[in-house]
Amino acid sequence: MEPFALKNALDNVRASVPLVHCITNYVTANDCANALLAIGASPIMSDEPTDVVDITSICGGLVLNIGTLSERTIEGMYAAGKRAGELGHPIVLDPVGAGASKLRTATAEGLLGKLDVRIVRGNKSEVRSLVGAAASTRGVDVNPDDAVTEQNLAENAAFARELAARWDTVVAITGAIDVVADSKRAFAVRNGVPLMGKITGAGCMLTCLSGAFAVANPGRLLEATVASVAALGLAGQIAADRMGGMDGTGSFRTYVLDALTRMDGAALDAGAKVEEIG
Amino acid sequence: MEPFALKNALDNVRASVPLVHCITNYVTANDCANALLAIGASPIMSDEPTDVVDITSICGGLVLNIGTLSERTIEGMYAAGKRAGELGHPIVLDPVGAGASKLRTATAEGLLGKLDVRIVRGNKSEVRSLVGAAASTRGVDVNPDDAVTEQNLAENAAFARELAARWDTVVAITGAIDVVADSKRAFAVRNGVPLMGKITGAGCMLTCLSGAFAVANPGRLLEATVASVAALGLAGQIAADRMGGMDGTGSFRTYVLDALTRMDGAALDAGAKVEEIG
Amino acid sequence: MEPFALKNALDNVRASVPLVHCITNYVTANDCANALLAIGASPIMSDEPTDVVDITSICGGLVLNIGTLSERTIEGMYAAGKRAGELGHPIVLDPVGAGASKLRTATAEGLLGKLDVRIVRGNKSEVRSLVGAAASTRGVDVNPDDAVTEQNLAENAAFARELAARWDTVVAITGAIDVVADSKRAFAVRNGVPLMGKITGAGCMLTCLSGAFAVANPGRLLEATVASVAALGLAGQIAADRMGGMDGTGSFRTYVLDALTRMDGAALDAGAKVEEIG
Repeated sequence: MEPFALKNALDNVRASVPLVHCITNYVTANDCANALLAIGASPIMSDEPTDVVDITSICGGLVLNIGTLSERTIEGMYAAGKRAGELGHPIVLDPVGAGASKLRTATAEGLLGKLDVRIVRGNKSEVRSLVGAAASTRGVDVNPDDAVTEQNLAENAAFARELAARWDTVVAITGAIDVVADSKRAFAVRNGVPLMGKITGAGCMLTCLSGAFAVANPGRLLEATVASVAALGLAGQIAADRMGGMDGTGSFRTYVLDALTRMDGAALDAGAKVEEIG
Repeated sequence: MEPFALKNALDNVRASVPLVHCITNYVTANDCANALLAIGASPIMSDEPTDVVDITSICGGLVLNIGTLSERTIEGMYAAGKRAGELGHPIVLDPVGAGASKLRTATAEGLLGKLDVRIVRGNKSEVRSLVGAAASTRGVDVNPDDAVTEQNLAENAAFARELAARWDTVVAITGAIDVVADSKRAFAVRNGVPLMGKITGAGCMLTCLSGAFAVANPGRLLEATVASVAALGLAGQIAADRMGGMDGTGSFRTYVLDALTRMDGAALDAGAKVEEIG
Repeated sequence: MEPFALKNALDNVRASVPLVHCITNYVTANDCANALLAIGASPIMSDEPTDVVDITSICGGLVLNIGTLSERTIEGMYAAGKRAGELGHPIVLDPVGAGASKLRTATAEGLLGKLDVRIVRGNKSEVRSLVGAAASTRGVDVNPDDAVTEQNLAENAAFARELAARWDTVVAITGAIDVVADSKRAFAVRNGVPLMGKITGAGCMLTCLSGAFAVANPGRLLEATVASVAALGLAGQIAADRMGGMDGTGSFRTYVLDALTRMDGAALDAGAKVEEIG
């Protein structure tokens, strides 16, 4: 990907302050809101079926995260998603724990099938469960057998392109190496650090950032998603580099938000490790 | 306002450890609880209609925040508010996102009309929407056209006094300059920093602090509200001054809670920038 | 307790990465998730009745926390607890605010009576309310009259053993001094610092840690609970020692998570202050 695209992708977020409607889980909603604010976007959380249509109408995009789904919030997701689709707002889906329960798998499949979802962001186990693979999700963690490595990178890129074609979305499979693809092209993002897996909400924050980048970069969903993946990964690297002798995951989480706050397009451009695959 | 009143207002919080019942949103509930603990109060969150009457009965005051309202928690707000009114507990309303959806506007209006609300704390757009102004709220953010500035300060003070008279409450309109009024007097508070708008929950925390100050300073609701506004603003200034080269909003949020923890009445007295208007 | 048991208890957590299903409150769910990750466990939060049975089936243990209970999540607690019992997973109950409302007291009693709860963790007021003591809980805080002191330690140890026998559980009564008992033995844990009471979620995090330790140390529930109590208390001490001139509860919370991240069995062994009583 041209560095120019990454630089612009972030600068466009900061210039336009995209308003992102999030229906997300209560575990990491605070981190999601702060990550969106840190990157220059503006979050609004609303999940009540009788509230979401108005709210999504004044926003630029919609993020759906099933981390602590309930029958009520699922109804809210469908209502908001229908309206967002009518308005042409990008919808981003985070199928948290798909494969771990019938309700989660069915909900993620249903949202993907009935709404105009434009970006799907999950770990490999979650994403696999959406195409009928035997459930292998380890709770909300990826199954170790599903790790993306240098050895299976080409295979995972092909898999991501295939899903992107089937769903007509961008697909981001995140892990030690992140793979982001549409039906035609796939990219590897080698930013990020293992410590990201030791704080709750790293995936949720990323999905929200993808939503902000998508709103701010209309018509360039692939670049927007790659940029968001690289931005959070780079923030993780900066945070890890900053850690001192007594620091652990509490400080790391704080430093990630700090790094997002201070990042601009030029810094993302300089730090992103993005490579096209195949 | 006499510095003495501000000093006492905070010292009274620390001396009495007011128990504050919060029905608030899940995005910033953690920040609200920690802010209340930091200032010397004690929070309890409960939103279930069958739980709230008992809970509010053992508390000293009630905070209602509609940030992630649902039909169930709205019912809880009315039940708790009715009981709090019977007991003479101060009720503080935060109309998060009023003007952004019909449900939010109607709920805020309904709570204000049917309960004995004593303090309303919101941004100018939210507050305007409660008196039938055309919806201008930008999600949960203030509309830039509604910014309080030195130029329109007298006008906003008059507006706040008018609403305070209409509702028989204290009204706090917070922004770059904060305006706090009852029907007779209005004050400008010039503490605070722009960074407060870049963390989620600054407004929610303030509303909870207003609740704690109100409980600890019965019969002095105006002074209590002014003191809470100055206290959080001062904490923001201390936090911003403390920030180093790599710090961003993650550290800033932490430092705000730290500053609240360490603040006493004398420090608030010394740092508060409060001026009567008109 | 043999230091060896404490060392092994934590090392077993880090070696086995126990998956813990938490049905917990939205105020501190983020802290709970991060505390579990920091100690080497893996959290999954799910409270919807139609989701919890699948989720708990893939986990190793279940934590039930009634901090922001609702009719819906209570139903989820019973459904998950029934399944966890069938599978022999340890169930840990945190009766947040029991004694403060009829719903909380009745729910805690009901869960304790109908499910195979193995560990109960609360403050003295909450625990007392479960055996018909007159409600004395001060919201979610312990009543000062219920403080555990050196003077009444033997009496509290006997009380904890008696409840442990009645309920066939481990009982952890936490406060200035923590008492952990089964029907035969009781231990005092003298780790911890008063500042732990000034952040929200200290108790909730502990209950989750007890769940992780219980899963990782099957058949040794008493040792597991003692180890978790000592681990969080020690993390609090390390965090308090680290605090600088401008630090308050915001930094303290971060440092507690940091200390949990860096703790291993040997450090716990060296720092734990555990003594058998009577």
